[in-house]
Amino acid sequence: MRLATLRNGTPDGVLVVVSPDGTACAPAPVPTLQQALEQWAAVAPALGAISAFPLPLDPDRLAAPLPRAWQWLDGSAYASHGALMDKVLGVTPVKTDLPLMYQGVSDTFYGPHDDVRMPDETLGIDFEGEFGVIVDAVPMGTTAAAALAHIRLVVQINDWSLRALAGPEMKTGFGWVQAKPPCSMAPFAVTPDELGDQWRDGRVCLDLLVDWNGRRFGAANGEPMGHGFHELVAHAARTRDLVAGTVIGSGTVSNPNFREIGSSCIAERRGIEVVDTGEARTAFMRFGDRVRMEGRMADGRAPFGAIDQQVVRA
Amino acid sequence: MRLATLRNGTPDGVLVVVSPDGTACAPAPVPTLQQALEQWAAVAPALGAISAFPLPLDPDRLAAPLPRAWQWLDGSAYASHGALMDKVLGVTPVKTDLPLMYQGVSDTFYGPHDDVRMPDETLGIDFEGEFGVIVDAVPMGTTAAAALAHIRLVVQINDWSLRALAGPEMKTGFGWVQAKPPCSMAPFAVTPDELGDQWRDGRVCLDLLVDWNGRRFGAANGEPMGHGFHELVAHAARTRDLVAGTVIGSGTVSNPNFREIGSSCIAERRGIEVVDTGEARTAFMRFGDRVRMEGRMADGRAPFGAIDQQVVRA
Repeated sequence: MRLATLRNGTPDGVLVVVSPDGTACAPAPVPTLQQALEQWAAVAPALGAISAFPLPLDPDRLAAPLPRAWQWLDGSAYASHGALMDKVLGVTPVKTDLPLMYQGVSDTFYGPHDDVRMPDETLGIDFEGEFGVIVDAVPMGTTAAAALAHIRLVVQINDWSLRALAGPEMKTGFGWVQAKPPCSMAPFAVTPDELGDQWRDGRVCLDLLVDWNGRRFGAANGEPMGHGFHELVAHAARTRDLVAGTVIGSGTVSNPNFREIGSSCIAERRGIEVVDTGEARTAFMRFGDRVRMEGRMADGRAPFGAIDQQVVRA
Repeated sequence: MRLATLRNGTPDGVLVVVSPDGTACAPAPVPTLQQALEQWAAVAPALGAISAFPLPLDPDRLAAPLPRAWQWLDGSAYASHGALMDKVLGVTPVKTDLPLMYQGVSDTFYGPHDDVRMPDETLGIDFEGEFGVIVDAVPMGTTAAAALAHIRLVVQINDWSLRALAGPEMKTGFGWVQAKPPCSMAPFAVTPDELGDQWRDGRVCLDLLVDWNGRRFGAANGEPMGHGFHELVAHAARTRDLVAGTVIGSGTVSNPNFREIGSSCIAERRGIEVVDTGEARTAFMRFGDRVRMEGRMADGRAPFGAIDQQVVRA
């Protein structure tokens, strides 16, 4: 089952169920995805039973599947990315075996084709291609094994970042606020079964194709997370209940062979350049730049649809 | 004008306007505080015009004035507190002239008398007495001077903290997630004019009386913030729009003469003990412990009412 949200002038939009070919949709029996998640056990069967899709899906009306959420917690679960980022940001964080996670702004998720407003080109505007999950209500203290059943939907995210602010904010110990403006989401939130055996061990084992201004920039696979999403959910729920609709991200998708397959963010490439040549050569994004991101199954399908948007001056 | 929210079985409760003596209330012309904040210019005059308070205010029905918010950003604006905390947490963060700020869980604010659920007594359960503000919509890039007019309400907050987790999370650079469970709010959100000249330069110049298990623990005044709330709001809005209903906290209220007047959190007292005697002697909270917090005007009034609640095992 694939779900999308169409703009209707309200902050949460209107929920639709998307046809298998992604070109049509049907109204959902609840108005919003947030409401569906709050009563998932009751609503999901009705959503899944829909087999007629009478309405054409207008790409221009697509909002993020969850246009705002009560909570957004982002991990950094790819070790090959983390090591490079420490280099490029100039930080030497203490090592931990626990998942890394910060809380980010959740009152806005950009739709897949929205212009992304940034205040200043000199702040190191960067994309971060990620996968994410949306949970129903998760009680405090839920184990990783039990958390798997709370993962109701999988999404694809661009975690916009301002790199010039990221290092200084890390060094305060308080984490990121200014360095992390709102994220974007790809058109469709999908149930894990849509990913077949490419959803395994709490990991989204798809290639994430990232194109910057029409050129392939990265094609990392989501599999090698150091902690699976169920472990990230359990980490988040250790000392708090998670409300239905909480979104949890993987952090930038990265593979150890990034020199061959590329990266899901500019900062990682810059880190490689620093390691290889002593200096970062790839500049960050400029106003007017576009980024496209599409998770691809082994059979070529793109279950989340594509993020394809440009950066503009706020 | 003082506003409160009564439980009615919904997550956002129902908004009421509170009588000057705090014992009675009147229904508001909008259902929730969130909705009032989204249309503040239109709603505030109607709220302020209410002068008859036909309903007794039942303390047992009090929720947090804003029971959940789209965003909670907490500062650390008292220098005397920050220096001690670095010692007690064993961190040496890089100094900055910018405000310190992290994003915390906002989907739940405990009501003033709610039991506070904690998973484990060994995690260093601590209170943090703070003041906070609630803004209407603040556009990205708003200056500190312009931010002052967006501060629509002032609140009093207990930012619950788990100190055993705080230092390790700071050292990752990602900031706090597990160390910061949901906060509590005192009964009444008040317009700045309710504080008279004790609201000045974006600061809540009230004594915050903190009692732990019936004993006075602290009585710091809110005035000596290194950055005023308007500066915290501008900091938060540098790279994002703030949606109406965003809550921004001061961080633990602290004064340089903390040896005489006490502290608004246990960790600060422990820091003093470390400095003075080489070791922390005051233990953190136990299940069943109570904390009471009440901001007091020079004339003795308590405009926010009091937080008075106990910690229980989750």
